Amino acid sequence: MYRYKLTIEYDGTPFFGWQRQKNLPTIQQFIEEAVQPLTKDLVTIQGAGRTDTGVHALGQVAHFDTDKHLKPFRIQECINAHLANQSISILNVEEVPLTFNARFNAIERRYIYKIINRRAKLSLDNNRAWKITKNIDINLMNSAAQLLKGKHDFSTFRAAGCQSLSPIKTLNNITIERVDDLILIKLFAKSFLYHQVRNIVGSLIKVGTGEWSIDYFHNIFKMCDRKLGAMTAPSHGLYFWNVIYDPKEL
Amino acid sequence: MYRYKLTIEYDGTPFFGWQRQKNLPTIQQFIEEAVQPLTKDLVTIQGAGRTDTGVHALGQVAHFDTDKHLKPFRIQECINAHLANQSISILNVEEVPLTFNARFNAIERRYIYKIINRRAKLSLDNNRAWKITKNIDINLMNSAAQLLKGKHDFSTFRAAGCQSLSPIKTLNNITIERVDDLILIKLFAKSFLYHQVRNIVGSLIKVGTGEWSIDYFHNIFKMCDRKLGAMTAPSHGLYFWNVIYDPKEL
Repeated sequence: MYRYKLTIEYDGTPFFGWQRQKNLPTIQQFIEEAVQPLTKDLVTIQGAGRTDTGVHALGQVAHFDTDKHLKPFRIQECINAHLANQSISILNVEEVPLTFNARFNAIERRYIYKIINRRAKLSLDNNRAWKITKNIDINLMNSAAQLLKGKHDFSTFRAAGCQSLSPIKTLNNITIERVDDLILIKLFAKSFLYHQVRNIVGSLIKVGTGEWSIDYFHNIFKMCDRKLGAMTAPSHGLYFWNVIYDPKEL
Repeated sequence: MYRYKLTIEYDGTPFFGWQRQKNLPTIQQFIEEAVQPLTKDLVTIQGAGRTDTGVHALGQVAHFDTDKHLKPFRIQECINAHLANQSISILNVEEVPLTFNARFNAIERRYIYKIINRRAKLSLDNNRAWKITKNIDINLMNSAAQLLKGKHDFSTFRAAGCQSLSPIKTLNNITIERVDDLILIKLFAKSFLYHQVRNIVGSLIKVGTGEWSIDYFHNIFKMCDRKLGAMTAPSHGLYFWNVIYDPKEL
């Protein structure tokens, strides 16, 4: 048995998310079908994270097993050729030890949330960013974001249906940058609760627009009640950026 | 009579360029039709530059005249509402003196050419960048680009059908930056010959991939013969970035 690690970019707009679903086009399904001409058997691709409908990826990671010993370059070329008309690209393929697991060995996942702060509708960034008309002060957002760093109960930002055993997570870092009307929010953690990134962004924006004070944000965070959090930020502003693994494990 | 200046963003992919054509969708035509509910008469929009099929704009500038005195904000909202389903956005509208001319008063036009240097096909940047597989050394490109700065005969980079009276142009500046596999080439001039930017990029890439020496590039530039230049870089990597006007004229 051989194991291969894939690094994957996609525009999530046309897909019903990462995870295979009956009768709906998903990214996992397209990649599984695209690799079949090489593996002959239908393989299962295990992703590092299950992105929702409309969420994009710059560096999703996945792995699959096959009893065929294949050249990584051939796998990459085969999948990309089969997905020529799909907005999915395999950026890299490596053979990895059977101990490597894209999901369970990840030591850090990184997400970017993209906001365009202007009144005019988006042309080039349509479906690629959240357009917010109200003036946003990122200094206020940054002050609020500092409160989230470290190990906390993130129930306020946890969606119903989250399968995590615990709402306790450690946010390694969060940064907010602005260049003209482009705002990028970057989040770093070993793992996230369901919708945690988009729920954090939704509430931080309330602070940035002045609707919420930093104290109010701090209070609703400590209350650990999702009903107190703001709306979930839209999926199309979210990018699964990349995944870090222990170099010893690859 | 009143004159209004528009600043316009577009994804050029679905259009047959800027300029109005019979029976083909163009950006000029869509904007002219979108402003009609306010002006009542069909106005003519004069753009600072005529972009080709597939070329994008971050800040195209145009003006039009009307005998209705309108609030700039209302013009912006009206056009954007009518173009809700088109990848065209009006970023700004200003009332300007009748001496202002978007095309003839420009003192500098700025273009960005976007390249992704990797093997895998593009997902998020499909139709938004030129994908080049061969390794590119931007230091070599930068050395060649220095030769283009200033006032020269640019016939080597001038397309057939160019309507400019002279092939002599002044390139104010050209810069080349790289971040990971993204390469941005920025060009600054009062005006450009037809396809000049894309022809310069096509030939600079020959230098960056090592196919041409800097001396060879210098020679073909001095020979002033388009047949010696490399292929025209594809339109979908080109962005009309912005236009500078003399503050006294605006």
